[in-house]
Amino acid sequence: MEWFEVKIKVRYSETDQMAIAYHGNYFSWFEVARTEMIRGIGTSYKEMEEHGVLLPVIDVSCQYKVSAKYDDELVVRVKCTKYNGIRMDFAYEIIREADQALIATGATKHAWIDKKYRPVRLGKIVPAIHKKLLQELEK
Amino acid sequence: MEWFEVKIKVRYSETDQMAIAYHGNYFSWFEVARTEMIRGIGTSYKEMEEHGVLLPVIDVSCQYKVSAKYDDELVVRVKCTKYNGIRMDFAYEIIREADQALIATGATKHAWIDKKYRPVRLGKIVPAIHKKLLQELEK
Amino acid sequence: MEWFEVKIKVRYSETDQMAIAYHGNYFSWFEVARTEMIRGIGTSYKEMEEHGVLLPVIDVSCQYKVSAKYDDELVVRVKCTKYNGIRMDFAYEIIREADQALIATGATKHAWIDKKYRPVRLGKIVPAIHKKLLQELEK
Amino acid sequence: MEWFEVKIKVRYSETDQMAIAYHGNYFSWFEVARTEMIRGIGTSYKEMEEHGVLLPVIDVSCQYKVSAKYDDELVVRVKCTKYNGIRMDFAYEIIREADQALIATGATKHAWIDKKYRPVRLGKIVPAIHKKLLQELEK
Repeated sequence: MEWFEVKIKVRYSETDQMAIAYHGNYFSWFEVARTEMIRGIGTSYKEMEEHGVLLPVIDVSCQYKVSAKYDDELVVRVKCTKYNGIRMDFAYEIIREADQALIATGATKHAWIDKKYRPVRLGKIVPAIHKKLLQELEK
Repeated sequence: MEWFEVKIKVRYSETDQMAIAYHGNYFSWFEVARTEMIRGIGTSYKEMEEHGVLLPVIDVSCQYKVSAKYDDELVVRVKCTKYNGIRMDFAYEIIREADQALIATGATKHAWIDKKYRPVRLGKIVPAIHKKLLQELEK
Repeated sequence: MEWFEVKIKVRYSETDQMAIAYHGNYFSWFEVARTEMIRGIGTSYKEMEEHGVLLPVIDVSCQYKVSAKYDDELVVRVKCTKYNGIRMDFAYEIIREADQALIATGATKHAWIDKKYRPVRLGKIVPAIHKKLLQELEK
Repeated sequence: MEWFEVKIKVRYSETDQMAIAYHGNYFSWFEVARTEMIRGIGTSYKEMEEHGVLLPVIDVSCQYKVSAKYDDELVVRVKCTKYNGIRMDFAYEIIREADQALIATGATKHAWIDKKYRPVRLGKIVPAIHKKLLQELEK
């Protein structure tokens, strides 16, 4: 799969007293990218939750290379690195627009579950999305 | 009603690059105080949500007197200023433990609703809590 | 002054278990609008901090009309309602893009200070910005 | 080094619409534990920043085992797993107080730097703290 990109700008509320973006906030940016990537495939994560499937996070990591600062324009790149109908993993890169500096790399791992927190096969509930995800992964 | 007090310590993640606690975070502190005050009455807000009633915020205000800083120990005081079975209002004060400086004052207004976002009379759903709230307000 | 508008989309991290955007987060959205409005005037808040002037919040309020939800596209409108060289106030409206519903209204009050938290006259430190702000307010 | 423990309670503002604590917030909890662990050693991170040394995060990871929910009382355990005067690493466990369930495990890696973001040897700037950290690690 190719990188899917979104742009965000670092908010004042996201900085800390070290005058850099607080490290925990990078995970919300990863999620913004994930949301738009799923929309790019032709569905929306919101709709999938309406179908009764959730995609909670089971593992995350992030490597901070260069500090992101207030008002920095960042490109957040995401790609799906694994999808087997039950599990779904993503990789990320954050690039500073101004000079293309690599700000951070990261990864998140997820499992499809239902509203009772039981694992589900996405293909059984929303087969159209399942098919699209498989097609995308082959690109 | 008398003030109900909780203690919190300003977290690093709550600071911004002005090296003070970000103003939006004060509302989470107000909520921590509200949660503990309701528990102090003999129920818990968590339980009330399990009874199917929610207490969303419809109006907030906050006056910032002195900046709260990282690692400051703060006393967050809350009292219920209005309760009529449908609406519920609270007032707040935040005091810096070290020197009793008044950090901020605030107020929030709420409405009891059900899970379909319709207004509800709390007394019809959880009469025991309704009675306790009325008793507390007379103190 | 006329309304200045920015668009934001509600992030998953901004929701709470009531399945609506957490009320404290509206203040970060107000700030995103403020940041872009100041840039629209021809400077940036980032630059102003580099000039040694800060614009902390001293009073906020917000009225929540309709709940904002995950993935909602929102227009955040801001205008400066007062500027006298020392103090600066803003008003806000949040509109849901899809149906133009009024989600919330709000206001924030600020004071220009230096890095030692002393009040400053903006006109003495960055006269060009001071002049532009006065011109904008007359529009 | 032995585990150092702090207790926290999941705040409403920390939940998301999946009705669990948002995964990015675990990193603020790790930081609360880190702050108190450093205080337990006899200094405070706040003081260290006043000495001109900062401890930014360069790598984080977290494994989510069981969802933390609103109002859950959690024990956040931290221990230093590496300290060589320049770098400092920590491991974490989050336990649910009620039933001792393991909620999450995690790790963060840090580097000591000065206010100009240059790497520093902690022993050169605050030798007393450097010595204490080495002693603690031998326990």
